[in-house]
Amino acid sequence: MTISPFDHPFLSGLLGDDEIASYFSIEADIRAMLSFEAALARAEAAHELIPADAARRIADTCAVFSPDVPSLRSATARDGVVVPDFIKQLRTAVSEEAAKSLHLGATSQDVIDTSLMIRLKAVAFLFAGRLSTITAGLDALDRQFGRNRLMGHTRMQAAIPITVSDRLNAWRAPLTTYRDRLTELSFPVQFGGAAGTLDKLGPQAATIRASLAQELGLADAPQWQSGRLPIADIAGLFASISGSLGKMGQDIALLAQAGDEIEISGGGTSSAMAHKQNPVSAEVLVSLARFNATALSGIHQSLVHEQERSGAAWTLEWLLLPQMTMATAASLRLAGELAGNIKRLGTA
Amino acid sequence: MTISPFDHPFLSGLLGDDEIASYFSIEADIRAMLSFEAALARAEAAHELIPADAARRIADTCAVFSPDVPSLRSATARDGVVVPDFIKQLRTAVSEEAAKSLHLGATSQDVIDTSLMIRLKAVAFLFAGRLSTITAGLDALDRQFGRNRLMGHTRMQAAIPITVSDRLNAWRAPLTTYRDRLTELSFPVQFGGAAGTLDKLGPQAATIRASLAQELGLADAPQWQSGRLPIADIAGLFASISGSLGKMGQDIALLAQAGDEIEISGGGTSSAMAHKQNPVSAEVLVSLARFNATALSGIHQSLVHEQERSGAAWTLEWLLLPQMTMATAASLRLAGELAGNIKRLGTA
Amino acid sequence: MTISPFDHPFLSGLLGDDEIASYFSIEADIRAMLSFEAALARAEAAHELIPADAARRIADTCAVFSPDVPSLRSATARDGVVVPDFIKQLRTAVSEEAAKSLHLGATSQDVIDTSLMIRLKAVAFLFAGRLSTITAGLDALDRQFGRNRLMGHTRMQAAIPITVSDRLNAWRAPLTTYRDRLTELSFPVQFGGAAGTLDKLGPQAATIRASLAQELGLADAPQWQSGRLPIADIAGLFASISGSLGKMGQDIALLAQAGDEIEISGGGTSSAMAHKQNPVSAEVLVSLARFNATALSGIHQSLVHEQERSGAAWTLEWLLLPQMTMATAASLRLAGELAGNIKRLGTA
Amino acid sequence: MTISPFDHPFLSGLLGDDEIASYFSIEADIRAMLSFEAALARAEAAHELIPADAARRIADTCAVFSPDVPSLRSATARDGVVVPDFIKQLRTAVSEEAAKSLHLGATSQDVIDTSLMIRLKAVAFLFAGRLSTITAGLDALDRQFGRNRLMGHTRMQAAIPITVSDRLNAWRAPLTTYRDRLTELSFPVQFGGAAGTLDKLGPQAATIRASLAQELGLADAPQWQSGRLPIADIAGLFASISGSLGKMGQDIALLAQAGDEIEISGGGTSSAMAHKQNPVSAEVLVSLARFNATALSGIHQSLVHEQERSGAAWTLEWLLLPQMTMATAASLRLAGELAGNIKRLGTA
Repeated sequence: MTISPFDHPFLSGLLGDDEIASYFSIEADIRAMLSFEAALARAEAAHELIPADAARRIADTCAVFSPDVPSLRSATARDGVVVPDFIKQLRTAVSEEAAKSLHLGATSQDVIDTSLMIRLKAVAFLFAGRLSTITAGLDALDRQFGRNRLMGHTRMQAAIPITVSDRLNAWRAPLTTYRDRLTELSFPVQFGGAAGTLDKLGPQAATIRASLAQELGLADAPQWQSGRLPIADIAGLFASISGSLGKMGQDIALLAQAGDEIEISGGGTSSAMAHKQNPVSAEVLVSLARFNATALSGIHQSLVHEQERSGAAWTLEWLLLPQMTMATAASLRLAGELAGNIKRLGTA
Repeated sequence: MTISPFDHPFLSGLLGDDEIASYFSIEADIRAMLSFEAALARAEAAHELIPADAARRIADTCAVFSPDVPSLRSATARDGVVVPDFIKQLRTAVSEEAAKSLHLGATSQDVIDTSLMIRLKAVAFLFAGRLSTITAGLDALDRQFGRNRLMGHTRMQAAIPITVSDRLNAWRAPLTTYRDRLTELSFPVQFGGAAGTLDKLGPQAATIRASLAQELGLADAPQWQSGRLPIADIAGLFASISGSLGKMGQDIALLAQAGDEIEISGGGTSSAMAHKQNPVSAEVLVSLARFNATALSGIHQSLVHEQERSGAAWTLEWLLLPQMTMATAASLRLAGELAGNIKRLGTA
Repeated sequence: MTISPFDHPFLSGLLGDDEIASYFSIEADIRAMLSFEAALARAEAAHELIPADAARRIADTCAVFSPDVPSLRSATARDGVVVPDFIKQLRTAVSEEAAKSLHLGATSQDVIDTSLMIRLKAVAFLFAGRLSTITAGLDALDRQFGRNRLMGHTRMQAAIPITVSDRLNAWRAPLTTYRDRLTELSFPVQFGGAAGTLDKLGPQAATIRASLAQELGLADAPQWQSGRLPIADIAGLFASISGSLGKMGQDIALLAQAGDEIEISGGGTSSAMAHKQNPVSAEVLVSLARFNATALSGIHQSLVHEQERSGAAWTLEWLLLPQMTMATAASLRLAGELAGNIKRLGTA
Repeated sequence: MTISPFDHPFLSGLLGDDEIASYFSIEADIRAMLSFEAALARAEAAHELIPADAARRIADTCAVFSPDVPSLRSATARDGVVVPDFIKQLRTAVSEEAAKSLHLGATSQDVIDTSLMIRLKAVAFLFAGRLSTITAGLDALDRQFGRNRLMGHTRMQAAIPITVSDRLNAWRAPLTTYRDRLTELSFPVQFGGAAGTLDKLGPQAATIRASLAQELGLADAPQWQSGRLPIADIAGLFASISGSLGKMGQDIALLAQAGDEIEISGGGTSSAMAHKQNPVSAEVLVSLARFNATALSGIHQSLVHEQERSGAAWTLEWLLLPQMTMATAASLRLAGELAGNIKRLGTA
């Protein structure tokens, strides 16, 4: 069953990305959720909210635990969220004594949002690296062809001649910005408890949250369970990245159409016309840009996140953000390949 | 690797739909593509464009053929579309003689768009049935509780009392319309050849296309490879269905919040608060409505489908329409369950 | 103060449409609201709900009444809707006796939604006419240049030669469909009273509504105050129209870029390059298509229209639908002009 | 003719904002475009590209010039942009000698984008002030009612009690972030000439651009005429602001529905039910949030800005960004009023 091209048996060859997809596997998600529970136990033990023994027991179990997935599935159908059954299974796995100390003061959103942030932080690091690869590819093209002449076009009409460097600069400039932004992006822990008030943690609540964040390598921040700006920020940056790469793709597709100012290797074949070389990745960059521009709208709709937690707005994020991440990943992968496949740009 | 909640190992319990997902499996897609090739051969043989023997051979092969999927995947990465490699594999599987008659005059879009229409036609039939189930459920509630009193609300404020029947009518009215529209919806064959002109079929082109449509149980229509209104129509109808069910979900979530005018069984549990009963499916109906409202925008962006075939606009459809179908499916499934779980509505 | 290009002092030259804008003037809106009140009084008098004298008095007043607009403005700021103050002013203008019979059993949404439908019905008629003009223009091009050769393009690459007729058919086919749909579109009266139940009209409610619809030349239909499918249907059709015209615009811009297959008169000039001829209207058709594709998403978001009337969802429609209408109008105007400005298409 | 509620004769009472609208008046736009031309002349004279006399003459004329608007309108219809005719009129107004020095090396996009940035910079300053007013209002509510009890809600269900402070914190936190971001936002000059290369300015191009930026109080930055990240950033921030205020509005509307935890003055009246008090501004905050979430999608679509300047993508921005600014303005205005109208929050 394959609904989404990002993980489709054959479409993923074009639209998927194995490296980034691994962060959205069920294994990665469960591993990150277990990290949260283990880190929480350690942080709570450090502040003497739970016994050190219990924390050790929880951490040991989390290191090896593997849940019953069909049970998770049917429980999610009922509860709208995987956490209650996941914790129930995990409680059974730790000793009865430690069970009371597990997930203490936490709620579903704490586990799921934090798991997401752990993984997005790793993804952002990889994205920054890919941006470097692409800009390096554009730099190489610049060294080789930068002084070549290219016809500048405004309003789809030949305007005045520019250099290949001019065009490459237009492609590269935003990518450098994005790399910096990815590096500076904050990935905050989410920890609020039942209604965002950490009601069960007493006066040490903020300190425990800070320890938890540190354990997980995330930024410490007050709960954002109903204030979804961190999600909107990440989605906005991802959509900007794929948008700028979509501009590069559109430019290359137009160059390929005109035909005499670019040579690309590795283009696609056609079932009807054997002679054709299609600028497939250039076009797909446009598709992915438009996909993310579309999806971003839904992420912003979910800023209207009512009360202490909205099931409706939160679930909408699940339907959009992982795919936006994948679209950005595919976009970066294809742009890197495309830059490498350009064999000539402009005319001497 | 599970990016999309619609086919996620545990989220699909909540957001998936096994029955409809089966139409978007790779098996269903390949089966439908093979149907296209077999039906095309038969139609072309009937009009003596290819030998009857070849058509028979092609049809026989299509009945049993199973492609090399990893090869399809890497070819799709290169070609942007699965068809060239799929046909190449299929050509090897039929005799060398019949190979020349296979896929004659057709192009990638013919195969893929027609495969989609074959499957969407079946899905629409199932959707119509589900709408009947939901309206039957609402009818039953009407018989039982229709005369009960419900506080009418306008602008989020108590207005004047209405009856439960009044509210049920508001939920039911659009559903009946949708059932009719699903039934009347046209699922056209796509057959245009390399550039939409059926250039290789000569004067019999339109007749062959009509035979092909009839073979496949689809409507005959001139090629729509760059005029994507059939796609926009289907997406619009699906988004309307989930939109109206989202209104029903929002109403039920608001009733559940107030608390004394509705009783629902089967609500979700909470990891932090054992006493809570969450109106999970009501909320998810809202999420799915907003998802489809978001995605519809991208489908309409892809109406700007340049020239004889746009790789960019077409690929964008692949990223959106199957998921819109799944969101609609989940929406119909959840609304049916929810209607069945309402144990009381209004006050006597 | 000019926020929207559709009625901007100079941008409206490009993006506006005087004819259609007149239907969204305050005068047109007030005239239509007065029609509603007059027709309602007549329908209620015909069914003896109010005295015939009162109805006559109301109709006479509505024929000449001109409200105090600054008062409407400050009342709208308070009430969220213009109707309470509008009716208050109108009550003062009719005799004290007739005042009791004015707006009897109606609510704000009845007045505003019905006023919108009265005007959209007229607009749809004009749109159908414009579509005929455009298809006639394409027919004329077909007669003159239809047999010319044009290079067919798929995936932004030259594919195989087609004829100018082939391309014109692709542009024309959806337009014919839209003309039929506009003609068949139902413009329903909205009449539901405070909570959609016509609670003040008794057993004659449906008959009075039918009379009201007939008076106004609208379709009779049960209230749709919280079931906004009529709005979504109209918005979807408008977005489809501008989407298909956007495809035509994109095609023409691409033809103009290549340069040897089209001659257009009336292109724009550039402040920096005197020699350039810009295919301005072709490009703007793309902008308007993408604008409507964007806005349609918001209209579908507002299908989640909670309870008996949602202020939030309804107000969102006001922010989108009039502009979608204007974008469609400008799109039809520009496409008509552009078809007329094509001096040559294809090569002999 | 009033298409957009933001400047509608009566709807603007609800949805408009006089202060911010003044920055989108034709007068403000023309004044800013004249500032650009005057500052450009001064910068070019300072670097001896044009005579000092000519610069003085241009600056003097720009200080008093008032263009022929109907001429601008018909020229915009033809050119797709106001600048060619605007410059032509301005050339006639300065002496024949100075005319040659006017607009030297600049293009339409330089004038229009820079005019927009000049005005958005002022708007952002006002927005930051409004955010301070709102947070001050929330601070005051916190001092008065912060210790009151409020029922926390998750998934639309009563969860556990929280304090009024907890809820106010959730509303306030993002607003403080936005104020900082507005202050830090960069408003770059746009100066690139015909194809973004400042081809007519020679080796001093970057220095002149820096002087120009300084003259105008904008940030100096390389041309961004085809890299529209500054636009996407501003639009994203505006949508985030209205999104967070929409969450506050939704929360207040839900509180008003429950009825016993909030008292608001200044609510709206109803044409059908005299007894009702409607939380109009709370609801409109939701509408405006969803409007901006919708429009943001179109801004991101226009990141696919082909070649050196895309008429299609650029025009799409004009259709969206000014309205997003107005929606944000109305949102900030209404949120400020609403905070002031809350007479009680929570229960003692």
